[in-house]
Amino acid sequence: MKSLEEKILREGKVLPGGVLKVGSFLNHQIDADFIMEMGREIARLFEGAGVTKILTVEASGIAIAIGAGAAMHVPVLFAKKSKTVNISGDVYQTVIHSFTHGVDYHVMVEKQFLQPDDKVLIVDDFLANGKAIEGLMNLATQSDATVVGVACAIEKGFQQGGDALRGQGLRVESLAIVERMDENGVVFRTQ
Amino acid sequence: MKSLEEKILREGKVLPGGVLKVGSFLNHQIDADFIMEMGREIARLFEGAGVTKILTVEASGIAIAIGAGAAMHVPVLFAKKSKTVNISGDVYQTVIHSFTHGVDYHVMVEKQFLQPDDKVLIVDDFLANGKAIEGLMNLATQSDATVVGVACAIEKGFQQGGDALRGQGLRVESLAIVERMDENGVVFRTQ
Repeated sequence: MKSLEEKILREGKVLPGGVLKVGSFLNHQIDADFIMEMGREIARLFEGAGVTKILTVEASGIAIAIGAGAAMHVPVLFAKKSKTVNISGDVYQTVIHSFTHGVDYHVMVEKQFLQPDDKVLIVDDFLANGKAIEGLMNLATQSDATVVGVACAIEKGFQQGGDALRGQGLRVESLAIVERMDENGVVFRTQ
Repeated sequence: MKSLEEKILREGKVLPGGVLKVGSFLNHQIDADFIMEMGREIARLFEGAGVTKILTVEASGIAIAIGAGAAMHVPVLFAKKSKTVNISGDVYQTVIHSFTHGVDYHVMVEKQFLQPDDKVLIVDDFLANGKAIEGLMNLATQSDATVVGVACAIEKGFQQGGDALRGQGLRVESLAIVERMDENGVVFRTQ
């Protein structure tokens, strides 16, 4: 998505340790109009896939998931994070390791909101090592719902998460894929 | 907002301890179309107020803030929660006590995203005792931005947060105000 690549080049900052900071429009301050535009692009990419529900994880995935949900007219379900295991039988839960924050999050969704006939599109802001996506797939699988694909705003192509998921046969659409980045700038993968 | 009151009556559940559960459309699973409709209503209420920025707090405030931001074509800034104090000089921070979870959250926003000439609309999903709103007002005040008002989806009118804020001269618009609720149902304040 050309407009996203341009926005990253204009507003993004590359920090040491492989961090791409896009807090001016994506995950701290959010450009609401642009989020809706990205949502429409995700809807276009997955048109005809029969998506019944969007699944994301709090907090920074919620905005783009709402953009996609509004464009596709389907509900958005966000997995909630907790430091503790929820022992209720009414939730599906799994563990996601965050390399960014160096902690394990227990994430959960209420069982009533994921049904076996759901066709789930997983949406997130970033795709790097793929741990968050794998956790969300795990939740969907527990419910016997079908995962029709993954849509992310920004994929770090130099980490292996996205390509590993594609290697499993999953449809992964990233609106921009960063092939490499350093203090000299950002280079995108041609899609 | 009649359609919100109807949705609460249809899908909401009153739990012991003054909890109104609306996880089917507002703060776990999100009805994306309805979030956009609520956002348009907030835009209508604050038309002409010159809002330049919407401020909310993660995680459950993000969805309705995006709805409002998309309708008003202004950026959405969400305060991030942390269990620890951020000692960086580049952030405004304050503490919000959550009665629901029984903990104090340190919340922060990066200074660059709140400027003295900003006219801030604070948006959240729930308004009960008003502690989250007060925390967000505190962040805005530190930046010398002007708070033009508060917009919430659901206010618990039987708690005192909303009316206390109004008593301070702040404009507070809630799309539905629950006057009382118990196992027999929910009664709304006439607005």
